[in-house]
Amino acid sequence: MLIIMSLDSPRHDIESVKNKIASCNCTPHEIPGADKLAIGITGPSDKLVKEEFLLLPSVEEVIRVTKKYKLVSRQMKSEDTIINVNGTVIGGNNLTIIAGPCAVESRDQIFDIAGKLKENGINFLRAGAYKPRSSPYAFQGLKEKGLEYLSDVKKEIGINIVTEVLNQSTITAVAEVADILQLGARNMQNYALLEEVGKTQKPILLKRGMSATIEELLLSAEYIVSQQNFNVILCERGIRTFETATRNTLDLNAVPVIKKNSHLPIFVDPSHGIGIWDKVSAMSMAAVAAGADGLIIEVHTNPENALSDGYQTLNIKTFTELMKKLKELAPVVNKKLNLSTNE
Amino acid sequence: MLIIMSLDSPRHDIESVKNKIASCNCTPHEIPGADKLAIGITGPSDKLVKEEFLLLPSVEEVIRVTKKYKLVSRQMKSEDTIINVNGTVIGGNNLTIIAGPCAVESRDQIFDIAGKLKENGINFLRAGAYKPRSSPYAFQGLKEKGLEYLSDVKKEIGINIVTEVLNQSTITAVAEVADILQLGARNMQNYALLEEVGKTQKPILLKRGMSATIEELLLSAEYIVSQQNFNVILCERGIRTFETATRNTLDLNAVPVIKKNSHLPIFVDPSHGIGIWDKVSAMSMAAVAAGADGLIIEVHTNPENALSDGYQTLNIKTFTELMKKLKELAPVVNKKLNLSTNE
Amino acid sequence: MLIIMSLDSPRHDIESVKNKIASCNCTPHEIPGADKLAIGITGPSDKLVKEEFLLLPSVEEVIRVTKKYKLVSRQMKSEDTIINVNGTVIGGNNLTIIAGPCAVESRDQIFDIAGKLKENGINFLRAGAYKPRSSPYAFQGLKEKGLEYLSDVKKEIGINIVTEVLNQSTITAVAEVADILQLGARNMQNYALLEEVGKTQKPILLKRGMSATIEELLLSAEYIVSQQNFNVILCERGIRTFETATRNTLDLNAVPVIKKNSHLPIFVDPSHGIGIWDKVSAMSMAAVAAGADGLIIEVHTNPENALSDGYQTLNIKTFTELMKKLKELAPVVNKKLNLSTNE
Amino acid sequence: MLIIMSLDSPRHDIESVKNKIASCNCTPHEIPGADKLAIGITGPSDKLVKEEFLLLPSVEEVIRVTKKYKLVSRQMKSEDTIINVNGTVIGGNNLTIIAGPCAVESRDQIFDIAGKLKENGINFLRAGAYKPRSSPYAFQGLKEKGLEYLSDVKKEIGINIVTEVLNQSTITAVAEVADILQLGARNMQNYALLEEVGKTQKPILLKRGMSATIEELLLSAEYIVSQQNFNVILCERGIRTFETATRNTLDLNAVPVIKKNSHLPIFVDPSHGIGIWDKVSAMSMAAVAAGADGLIIEVHTNPENALSDGYQTLNIKTFTELMKKLKELAPVVNKKLNLSTNE
Repeated sequence: MLIIMSLDSPRHDIESVKNKIASCNCTPHEIPGADKLAIGITGPSDKLVKEEFLLLPSVEEVIRVTKKYKLVSRQMKSEDTIINVNGTVIGGNNLTIIAGPCAVESRDQIFDIAGKLKENGINFLRAGAYKPRSSPYAFQGLKEKGLEYLSDVKKEIGINIVTEVLNQSTITAVAEVADILQLGARNMQNYALLEEVGKTQKPILLKRGMSATIEELLLSAEYIVSQQNFNVILCERGIRTFETATRNTLDLNAVPVIKKNSHLPIFVDPSHGIGIWDKVSAMSMAAVAAGADGLIIEVHTNPENALSDGYQTLNIKTFTELMKKLKELAPVVNKKLNLSTNE
Repeated sequence: MLIIMSLDSPRHDIESVKNKIASCNCTPHEIPGADKLAIGITGPSDKLVKEEFLLLPSVEEVIRVTKKYKLVSRQMKSEDTIINVNGTVIGGNNLTIIAGPCAVESRDQIFDIAGKLKENGINFLRAGAYKPRSSPYAFQGLKEKGLEYLSDVKKEIGINIVTEVLNQSTITAVAEVADILQLGARNMQNYALLEEVGKTQKPILLKRGMSATIEELLLSAEYIVSQQNFNVILCERGIRTFETATRNTLDLNAVPVIKKNSHLPIFVDPSHGIGIWDKVSAMSMAAVAAGADGLIIEVHTNPENALSDGYQTLNIKTFTELMKKLKELAPVVNKKLNLSTNE
Repeated sequence: MLIIMSLDSPRHDIESVKNKIASCNCTPHEIPGADKLAIGITGPSDKLVKEEFLLLPSVEEVIRVTKKYKLVSRQMKSEDTIINVNGTVIGGNNLTIIAGPCAVESRDQIFDIAGKLKENGINFLRAGAYKPRSSPYAFQGLKEKGLEYLSDVKKEIGINIVTEVLNQSTITAVAEVADILQLGARNMQNYALLEEVGKTQKPILLKRGMSATIEELLLSAEYIVSQQNFNVILCERGIRTFETATRNTLDLNAVPVIKKNSHLPIFVDPSHGIGIWDKVSAMSMAAVAAGADGLIIEVHTNPENALSDGYQTLNIKTFTELMKKLKELAPVVNKKLNLSTNE
Repeated sequence: MLIIMSLDSPRHDIESVKNKIASCNCTPHEIPGADKLAIGITGPSDKLVKEEFLLLPSVEEVIRVTKKYKLVSRQMKSEDTIINVNGTVIGGNNLTIIAGPCAVESRDQIFDIAGKLKENGINFLRAGAYKPRSSPYAFQGLKEKGLEYLSDVKKEIGINIVTEVLNQSTITAVAEVADILQLGARNMQNYALLEEVGKTQKPILLKRGMSATIEELLLSAEYIVSQQNFNVILCERGIRTFETATRNTLDLNAVPVIKKNSHLPIFVDPSHGIGIWDKVSAMSMAAVAAGADGLIIEVHTNPENALSDGYQTLNIKTFTELMKKLKELAPVVNKKLNLSTNE
């Protein structure tokens, strides 16, 4: 259930509504929009009576919500969520590019790549310090050393860091370095981790699980948001199907479906989505044309020698060409690239 | 195996190569390109000796092909296949829009829609006279009557007809009216039908089966082409996955994969691909940005009352807005809309 | 809608009901059961008024059907459909084994295998004369020659023939030899073919399409049955999923689901369902334990040299061992193997 | 790489082999079998020279392993892994039944059900204290209170407890009560959790992820085993496919594939695998016939009022009938039910 009040409702009226909700053993969530203040309600709804709320002062409307997710829904908040990361704005009509290698491999490698990306105006560097791998014997990242290099590159080059957090015990260390915490596909339903990152106020990039439905992705975002962290970016990265010609099947249908049902920004990862480097640019263009708010792309100065994911990674030349095409495409879909050179 | 000869090889030399192939119980296929003449070979390859062909006059190169499909592969012919339909050219840098209702419902309905599409410059009308339906009790199309209306609308309005052929016994009747014969997803592996339409010289729009791999789609095209009909247009229309928020999962990955591996044009059907009308425009844009050569879109003057597929059908207003956006998008991906008003 | 009458209703009363149905532009279908006569109705249901039928003499009950399929549903006919093939009874508590090679390869091969199967008591030989293949260049069967050998083996060895019909033009020739006509997975939604085989009175083995839902399989059976051919055997043969360790994913869930919703017998093809010969016996046992009415298994005297599907084919020794285990299993699930040596 | 030595090799020879492995920066794992001692090696294999190991005393064979998983493979250990849980033996020719409700709901509920199961000879009670749920607003289990009730029922009724551990922070508390720690489908690739439970010596029931391949399931088991916990039971519980008639598609193909490739026991969860209570018995029988070492089944004294999963839960009467059929089936597949009343 959603209670809609005018934005300039007296504080006293707002508190009355919240108290009434609490007295029914439910939890109120205040969500201010452009014109209206919505109060979301979570918890057992059996004692809530719509008519009783309509009688309270400043209440304009009471809406019954039928979707399983509430706080992340468009019904709850009709305007797009905008996330400000150290001055660069994500969501709305901004088109954001996150780029970088699969993993931090060495100090030189990450400085080299970050420098080249910065020359392209890129404000967000992706690179894993901790890597989840199917096999216990595969390269699992440089771990603490990787975080240290990321911290250095951030200070010296001036670029925001997007890096993955794998488990509860490393959240604090990763959050110290990361400007955006990434939650990987395999952890999309790791509810303990979702709740933990919900308790930080860091922006979260939440990737869709390999076989998660769109509704399940939104429900996982709901876990984070219900902890009062509204800075969630969703990310489509390909799902598992019978097709073997590509690494995954990039489900771009998810972009307009999510834009309709949720106020959260939706990004696309074309690198994992198709898994073959010479087709990543085509899928990047497709994602933006479908309405994506941003892309997260694997880029390396030397993909042939990357320790992981080399086959799906762009080199600097191809990435630079792609950026040129994205600049032409953005205005066609009413978007503006939020590059550092633009500002 | 592919034999590469120069385009100006004397006829005598070409015939020697073909005779040698035939003497090994194989079949030669002449495929002229821009610079070179390729001679494809199908049949049992065990008696073919590469070195023996290299000794023949005018032979420049002999290439072993490892893919299962041959005649439709890029290796066989490096330039894009171009298909001329009554003066409108499909493939290459042309972007082609096929639009119209799921089914012919009445004389008035089809004239009404075709007129509105023509005003938008559309050169290709889609509409089914025969409809394949999961249930024997669902509306199966107007059949012969539907073909008659299509024939009338073609003459009076001047628009090319794209309509589905369901079985061998109606090929002749359908081919008399159709400018492009459509083969539906359920018939993608109906090999008898593939061979029959291969014997006509009509352009074929071959839709991907619901669970067909990209390789299987190309092999089905190979069935048609091996009957000497090279005018095949492939069409991605969504595959079956676990996701239930959309009718199908539109696999746009197929576009760059097919562009790389085959010389045939690849279209996309966003209407079946997502199955929800208010998201069809987003997926149309995405398909073109991914590199598609054309779109096939369901459009109706009155979608709410359509006898089938109304939920995924655009009305004229939304379609006209989409066309405006596609005109902006086309040059960004080096394409040109081949509308009648352009010419 | 279903009209339930007592089995001994006077003919006159039955005809009144059928006339009333016809006067509403619908088609009546008489389906006698053990106790009751059901009259199924297909066509537009808008003019049918339940109360009007209840007033007619001998009518006991009128049931509204909500499933899309009608004639094949358990609601229409509560007892299992029993199919008698030249004295061997399929369905009910009978467990039927169909065995044989993927394809007829030569006169010797098919006589050799049929002889060995007969020694095991097998009453049904499977073998393709026409083979549908993804590639136009793969072995497509011996065609007419194959039918001739099958006709010979049937006469000389005395075994029923199960063989696939691929298209409308060969139905007559195949039906002359076949005791059970097989419709392959790729043709499950070839509606023209379904209707044609529905017009014969031959028993039909209808295989589930690679990505067909259980409901779609039942709807395809409905196409056959609505042509008055009630002798349909359904067959689960594995569906397409992301798993690559096996050729298909055998969906044994389909067995109890179909037993609940339909009166038709359901067989399982473990050879295509898992695609690896040394695991076919385990899946055969599982299928019978799940409640399957029969199995169709690929068996060859010399699998290593089979022209197709050798990797999933049992040799005679393994097949004989499996038969021994099936004999132990059958009574546990209240089934009886209908072998020739049993009778 | 695997080093095979005779079981009675002198300790000194074994240590030499292990020292040589360690000197190459790899880790040796001793795995005793019935006849032979295998020493598995994990870590970077580039410095290992096969010939050098063959020269060491007591070494009989050196095998190169090509599969990605090593310690869990049949190549590493040819005999089935046997797990002894407080005197009840799992694996080998034992057929083990784990039964109980989805969740602990109250003290009375869990005592009631456990009592009824004990009367059926069941030695293992399943019941969740912590429940992972897609929605943050769904019932998440009684948590600590649930563990307390499980601890009580274990002591008073004398039944082993199988219960799920959701995250690192509750492992110790859950492991105090559980005799078998369950890892759920959503956590199959939660590598931090896999490593943690690998450090305990508790038997682990590892469920296959909804879209995990069989190889990925084995690799996740490898994470546990590489921490020296060999007591891992794998569990097939259905995968995600396009089929919507059932909750999941139970992939029984996984049973013979895993039996061939791994020495670990494989269980099946027919309740989640089909998701409809009146079809759970059929799939239980199928799983055992396919070769499963055990079943985990949802049973409740009052399924209609269960707080979760009621639709797929058996009542005591149906479960008792199923047990009767399983007793008949077990000897057909050379298995013996390890019930408490048997001993």
